[in-house]
Amino acid sequence: MPRRPQRASSSRDLERYAGLFADRTKVMTSSAMRDLMAITERPEVISLAGGLPDTSTFPPGQFAEIMGAIAQTALARTLQYGPTEGTADVKDCIVQVMEAEGTVVDPADILVTTGGQQVIDLVCKTLVNPGDVIIAEAPTYPGAVPAFSSYQADVRQIEMDADGMRIDILEEALADLDREGRTPKFIYVIPNFQNPAGVTMSLPRRQRLVQIARERELLILEDNPYGLLRYEGDPLPTLRSLDGGDFVISLGTFSKIISPGIRIGWAVAPRPVLQKMNQGKQGSDLCSSTLSQIFVSEYFASSRWTDYVDAQKQLYRRRRDVMLDALAEHLPAEATWTRPQGGLFIWATLPDGLDTTDLLARALTRNVAFVPGRGAFLDGRGGTSMRLNFSGVGDDDIREGIRRIGEVVSEQLDLLRALTGGPLATEARPPTEAGTREPDPALADVLELPRRDAGDQAARRDRG
Amino acid sequence: MPRRPQRASSSRDLERYAGLFADRTKVMTSSAMRDLMAITERPEVISLAGGLPDTSTFPPGQFAEIMGAIAQTALARTLQYGPTEGTADVKDCIVQVMEAEGTVVDPADILVTTGGQQVIDLVCKTLVNPGDVIIAEAPTYPGAVPAFSSYQADVRQIEMDADGMRIDILEEALADLDREGRTPKFIYVIPNFQNPAGVTMSLPRRQRLVQIARERELLILEDNPYGLLRYEGDPLPTLRSLDGGDFVISLGTFSKIISPGIRIGWAVAPRPVLQKMNQGKQGSDLCSSTLSQIFVSEYFASSRWTDYVDAQKQLYRRRRDVMLDALAEHLPAEATWTRPQGGLFIWATLPDGLDTTDLLARALTRNVAFVPGRGAFLDGRGGTSMRLNFSGVGDDDIREGIRRIGEVVSEQLDLLRALTGGPLATEARPPTEAGTREPDPALADVLELPRRDAGDQAARRDRG
Repeated sequence: MPRRPQRASSSRDLERYAGLFADRTKVMTSSAMRDLMAITERPEVISLAGGLPDTSTFPPGQFAEIMGAIAQTALARTLQYGPTEGTADVKDCIVQVMEAEGTVVDPADILVTTGGQQVIDLVCKTLVNPGDVIIAEAPTYPGAVPAFSSYQADVRQIEMDADGMRIDILEEALADLDREGRTPKFIYVIPNFQNPAGVTMSLPRRQRLVQIARERELLILEDNPYGLLRYEGDPLPTLRSLDGGDFVISLGTFSKIISPGIRIGWAVAPRPVLQKMNQGKQGSDLCSSTLSQIFVSEYFASSRWTDYVDAQKQLYRRRRDVMLDALAEHLPAEATWTRPQGGLFIWATLPDGLDTTDLLARALTRNVAFVPGRGAFLDGRGGTSMRLNFSGVGDDDIREGIRRIGEVVSEQLDLLRALTGGPLATEARPPTEAGTREPDPALADVLELPRRDAGDQAARRDRG
Repeated sequence: MPRRPQRASSSRDLERYAGLFADRTKVMTSSAMRDLMAITERPEVISLAGGLPDTSTFPPGQFAEIMGAIAQTALARTLQYGPTEGTADVKDCIVQVMEAEGTVVDPADILVTTGGQQVIDLVCKTLVNPGDVIIAEAPTYPGAVPAFSSYQADVRQIEMDADGMRIDILEEALADLDREGRTPKFIYVIPNFQNPAGVTMSLPRRQRLVQIARERELLILEDNPYGLLRYEGDPLPTLRSLDGGDFVISLGTFSKIISPGIRIGWAVAPRPVLQKMNQGKQGSDLCSSTLSQIFVSEYFASSRWTDYVDAQKQLYRRRRDVMLDALAEHLPAEATWTRPQGGLFIWATLPDGLDTTDLLARALTRNVAFVPGRGAFLDGRGGTSMRLNFSGVGDDDIREGIRRIGEVVSEQLDLLRALTGGPLATEARPPTEAGTREPDPALADVLELPRRDAGDQAARRDRG
């Protein structure tokens, strides 16, 4: 009989292996939302923490039918390894999705990946040496944080307002880098319904950003997972369609328009970059699931994929509105939040002095979860903010979840007022973790509801 | 209408982006078998190049039934994100597979990955700084080559013989490293039916290897994709079962016992290492396909998974024998090859002076493919060898494929003899690419058939 392995991971163990770890592990971080998953999987927890689409709406009969057809006509191929760059059929589906977003691409420029996350990883693998600069938004996608940190990147986060990344601040940052003799390896942006901030980059900013990239020969990584999930207003052109493809790498995914559980995303990139990304993928996982790729292409062949997206949009639009109403009802007067035109997230900011990381611990005792704002920064900022997802849970759970968060916030706020002996003062705010930068107020500009006093809360509630 | 993107990737393009590429891209290589996939997908090509199991044997009815059950009972969960470490159910299946291999593991020590390939990537991510030493076998798994090179590792390849890695040479290499003041980050071995060499590490060598790891507190990465595909002889204990789990990281996969197209593998590692690998995976792809994981656990729940493995073993055993016979019939007298007790591969070595990379180009004109030996080395060795897969194609194609390879080899050999004006001389051998080391003759020891003259070929054919 084989020996039963030893279990406990003691400090002796850590010591034993620590000397073998690569330098990158010292700065590698977990993603805030990944760490939460074990907790939020418990059925009694209302999780507003995930970036989860509602997968309960996918028709079981259609799923079974597609898989039945695959069994009959393509099973051996479905269970086999596929080419690293992806199957020809799934690339044709990707071309259709991107066309619906207003971007024309050649299938030969596509690399199919294991979710959109892998695109971020492969772009870093291709471009980033330790210490290299990546420019991102402030806040940025919490899932990009472990990717950037594992490549030991120097991430500079550029403030946003209601029109997305502040291009004037970007230009200042680029000028600063010029003086340091440094060039950012790429600019990472989520122009539509940004994760986590919920804001959308305006057309003039898109045009200017692309122009800057061309002038300076800089690469942009355009992350566009939610582009088709717009609940109001007119679509804006993608950065890639404005640029023509010389300096923009597109990141797309089926996660939010079909299913994240199939783990199929894609990159569209200039050929020399794409070739390196392909080599990087060979080392990472050889190829993405053939089963998933063939499921996607059979799904596209057997139905109008846009019908399902339309149905999801109806659902998510209503849930967004339910959450906005609940926030107006349950968050204290000093809180502010964004009003997204699409996507999955609202970004709420609490009065100075509150800390959403502490707050999460208390919220979890009441079985409700969110992503604390610090998870969206690499520099310790974000302590007063939180990301709230409205796509993954039903109306009643949204209302109840926000009600519980509101309770916890009010309690903490009362405690803080008692401690500071009066109305909330900015002096009471604890220093940020990084200690070097102050939390920035730029997101205040983003707000649907400007900073307000309790007096007008009733009015807004009526409007909701 | 969006602007149509530019297509061609000119040298101007390469120049434009080259300055942005990370240092690692300079040493990143493609995997020999990945590069071949586009060619070998053509139906007229007999490919002995892939590491493909035969997926045409999976019962379509069973596949459709499992997917139908998933549609009815678990669809929302199947299409949703899952935990980074993997679903609890699929971990239970992994415990069963490892138990069948004689290794007892705790589900909490498992990380589910996107194929076994991702384990190699995550182990490197956790342990390897640029320039760090990895020890591997000579030859090693061609798919490990792009992974190791993307981490800029200094790979030292240790000769093998019929009993696997030469532990005496390993000890010399470790002593050399001691003198350099360096410690290898891990020792990468495939003890069972090695890919590509087809040899199996003997029990005394396993015991000694584990002992060395314990004495020196070195990690071993035990890659065991084919452990259950043994066609003759008795199973040997895994390195992990000999070690108890302190210094051995296990790599497993469902690729060869169910399907590679589902892309589900796993790592079992000491907790501190596993935690870092989990963080690394968050950045790489968040989690592996939930669809694939639930397919696996439903498959295990609905049938005896070992029955399918037993059926595959029957099939592959026969194909191995067909290939061994064909090699005896069609390869020239000076060629040698291994006789694997299991797995998917035979490693054939041609007379000095022939180059299998050149040979492949000629073989492809006759619509037959193999992996040239250089793909299994990082130092330019392997030029006279080739990896031949016998699991992925039928008996007739194996015979015909080997016949065509034999033809090309004979022609090249005749040409070489004409050029060198007589019987084959080792002096005629071109220098290896690396230029620093001589090709090693150690694999000659591995051979079922020792170097022989044409005279006894007929005798062996009769025996076949």
